[in-house]
Amino acid sequence: MEENPFQEIGHGDRTVKPCILVIFGATGDLTARKLVPAIYNLKREGQLPSHFACVGFARREKTHDQFRDEMEKGINSFSRVKPVDKDLWSNFHEQLYYHQSEFSEDDGYQSLKKFLEELDEKLGTQGNRVFYLSTQPSFFPTIIEKLKKNGLIYNTDDERFSRVIIEKPFGHNLTSAKELQTDLMQHLDEQQLYRIDHYLGKETVQNLLVFRFGNSLFENMWNNRYIDHVQITVAENIGIGTRGRFYEESGLLRDIIQNHMMQLLSLVAMEPPVNLTAEAIRDEKVKVLQSISPFNEKTFESHAVRGQYGPGFIEGEACKGYREEENVDPKSQIETYAALKLYVQNWRWAGVPFYLRGAKRMPKRVTEISVRFKDAPGILFHQPGQKNRPNVLAIRIQPNEGIALRMNCKVPGPSSPIQPVTMDFRYGQFFGMAPPEAYERLICDCMIGDNTLFTREDEVFNSWRILSPLLEYWENNVPDDFPNYQAGTWGPESAVELLARHKRKWRLL
Amino acid sequence: MEENPFQEIGHGDRTVKPCILVIFGATGDLTARKLVPAIYNLKREGQLPSHFACVGFARREKTHDQFRDEMEKGINSFSRVKPVDKDLWSNFHEQLYYHQSEFSEDDGYQSLKKFLEELDEKLGTQGNRVFYLSTQPSFFPTIIEKLKKNGLIYNTDDERFSRVIIEKPFGHNLTSAKELQTDLMQHLDEQQLYRIDHYLGKETVQNLLVFRFGNSLFENMWNNRYIDHVQITVAENIGIGTRGRFYEESGLLRDIIQNHMMQLLSLVAMEPPVNLTAEAIRDEKVKVLQSISPFNEKTFESHAVRGQYGPGFIEGEACKGYREEENVDPKSQIETYAALKLYVQNWRWAGVPFYLRGAKRMPKRVTEISVRFKDAPGILFHQPGQKNRPNVLAIRIQPNEGIALRMNCKVPGPSSPIQPVTMDFRYGQFFGMAPPEAYERLICDCMIGDNTLFTREDEVFNSWRILSPLLEYWENNVPDDFPNYQAGTWGPESAVELLARHKRKWRLL
Repeated sequence: MEENPFQEIGHGDRTVKPCILVIFGATGDLTARKLVPAIYNLKREGQLPSHFACVGFARREKTHDQFRDEMEKGINSFSRVKPVDKDLWSNFHEQLYYHQSEFSEDDGYQSLKKFLEELDEKLGTQGNRVFYLSTQPSFFPTIIEKLKKNGLIYNTDDERFSRVIIEKPFGHNLTSAKELQTDLMQHLDEQQLYRIDHYLGKETVQNLLVFRFGNSLFENMWNNRYIDHVQITVAENIGIGTRGRFYEESGLLRDIIQNHMMQLLSLVAMEPPVNLTAEAIRDEKVKVLQSISPFNEKTFESHAVRGQYGPGFIEGEACKGYREEENVDPKSQIETYAALKLYVQNWRWAGVPFYLRGAKRMPKRVTEISVRFKDAPGILFHQPGQKNRPNVLAIRIQPNEGIALRMNCKVPGPSSPIQPVTMDFRYGQFFGMAPPEAYERLICDCMIGDNTLFTREDEVFNSWRILSPLLEYWENNVPDDFPNYQAGTWGPESAVELLARHKRKWRLL
Repeated sequence: MEENPFQEIGHGDRTVKPCILVIFGATGDLTARKLVPAIYNLKREGQLPSHFACVGFARREKTHDQFRDEMEKGINSFSRVKPVDKDLWSNFHEQLYYHQSEFSEDDGYQSLKKFLEELDEKLGTQGNRVFYLSTQPSFFPTIIEKLKKNGLIYNTDDERFSRVIIEKPFGHNLTSAKELQTDLMQHLDEQQLYRIDHYLGKETVQNLLVFRFGNSLFENMWNNRYIDHVQITVAENIGIGTRGRFYEESGLLRDIIQNHMMQLLSLVAMEPPVNLTAEAIRDEKVKVLQSISPFNEKTFESHAVRGQYGPGFIEGEACKGYREEENVDPKSQIETYAALKLYVQNWRWAGVPFYLRGAKRMPKRVTEISVRFKDAPGILFHQPGQKNRPNVLAIRIQPNEGIALRMNCKVPGPSSPIQPVTMDFRYGQFFGMAPPEAYERLICDCMIGDNTLFTREDEVFNSWRILSPLLEYWENNVPDDFPNYQAGTWGPESAVELLARHKRKWRLL
């Protein structure tokens, strides 16, 4: 094939420029558990820029050394590579700093600016900045406004860069997401805003594109002629723990489905992009979301199921019901389980349902996309009274990242019964290591300026557009059966019926 | 789907009726190595009829007990389950007998008849017979004639059955195969003749039908729109050993390709049969062979390659060249390697080459069918100067029976190179046991009267029809480069060129 000179190959230049990473909310859980261990591992693998610093920003009083000690503990407890390498740490810990301030006080931003400029001098970080907002979302507008006001966010034509990473959720529904966007865009440009969705940093998720478009085999069958339906499951065995207050405001649909699961759906269903640039890929992802109708009167009840866990057992241990959790209303109507049936109404997927289920307090933790192919004609190896199991391609995102294909085979021996067997590929087994943590990839990408794996505004809006009516309907129509599943079971009966109506079943995981 | 009342499901009745198995050439290698261990294992697994005996027939003088002792040694050395189970053996060895006679003397058949009738009385074997001809093929006509003449082969309308299993080769070319058939059909019916091809008894070979027609996934892609080409390899690391005299008469094409490999080709390429009856399956297999043109002037040189091994090394050990082997002409022109390019000229396969290579003294022993899918468009994950490896489905027939699928995946980490990985299914690993020996299945099938896995006359004729002209051409056109490959290498350079002409390569095994 002729080269197409207009076509970019791969992700282009992946050089990391000198920069300083500032973490807002640096005393929070995420910093010690995920962010600093991720940065440490980037350092270990030579992927940090040679001129680099990381500054924690939070309200508590703390010295640089106190912050460093806490981070060392974090790495020792949570890094995928433990314990800390002493030599590496003695070098790395000098790149860690702490800056105390309130989020709303200009002084603190002025002193931050001064401190960062001193570090630029000392370390050669050239004025480049990444601001990681690991705070409650309600602080996003304030922090970004203050950053801009105090000269920490540059114009896009500046030769230095300033980028802002924000955690989910982006808004609470379509209206608030649009308001938030308008608010933020007064101070920075969409290109400077990196909406992180850590699912997109997971190896198996990134591999979806390679798996689909780097191979001829499955892509040829990736459509409504060969596929019966797709299931996407994000099951957690944990409950809501200490997050009761947050959960009462949010619920599962907002917490898991609106962002992570809609992203997985987009990647599974998207058309091949023109090239691998961030815009080309996100253009295709957003087209998938645009092809899905928002929930409406006809589908509120028939295409969606919600649930809330009552008391139960997981691995032999008693678990509280949701309504007994800390900071939860004893009459709470918030969902901890949701299952949806969605149709991607385009030429490729017409008639193929995508079933999504996300839940807390399931029997185990597992995230998986499974593609269920149509039945083979039941003609030759169809045993009376027994149907052969259909072919299923399962993409496991966690744990045990890998890909498995269920095929029917002959059981050895003369009697020839048919049995499904699994062809299996496991990342860890094959490459001899656990894949890197999602945050490593995402932080590195942001420093490079590659926003492929971050969510674009229109993706967020379209996801809200689909789900906001359902959220509203749920708020206005109180469920009469909560709690409707026991902790440690696979959710309410009505979710089984959602599939059973069309003779389908949830996959046993 | 509505049931089709005319459609047979499965193989139907698989009850084994009482019978006596008579092995001609019972002092030969095959009996102690394969046949009796297979019968022993059938016994062990409860698949022998409850009323059963096995009688060895050969020219040497031997008592029943001498024969039994030899067979016990055979089982202890060669059975897939060792050592002999003492209790089982004490029961089984009484079912083993020996009968001495020349193959050409009527007296010996008369006394055999009498002996078998006594066993019928004693054991309740009801007059049913299976005659296994494990002798040189030149004895087939004589033995079958004598069996018939002495009343050991019944008419097909007899309520008792008499079946004859013969080993390959069936004829030496198309003409002699037809002559042999005419000869044999004077004494028995095609339905009574079981031409054994032990490749068809192998689990992975039988699984081919289930794999193809019990799954929707691959069958949808099993055609010239998706498949670039198919390779079938039967590589042996052994030389011709003590079989020099036989090999000088035969050569690799007759020994391996005309039977085993053409059978594998038929199973890979066949259309779905109407049902699973022996006739329906063999009808489809023969249609594949009918769709292949015989070799001719245009293809003798361009579509076929022959080779003969010279001295070399396998796993560090020196090996003689073919011409130095025992009972081989020092100027022998016989091939020990052959590679063919065949086209199955039907709607499904038009334009898809099937490459067959069979050989002695390869670096290792491996039998494999590999289906090479067409390239993915080299658009997205195509790295400059480097092509992604295509998807390959490999069906391993021996050793390590299983199925593997090569896919391209993303290497973990931020730099995203693409690497082929393998999704794997292994019989032994999955079912926790080595699959049964081919002879077990085939002997059992013959006792049942199921000739699905035996070669029908038109299959034999069509295979000879394709290959006889090539054999004749080779005999009349002496190769000038023999020996043209070293023992322990993958064959002559010209075989590489056979594929390289169309930018293809033999799979590395």
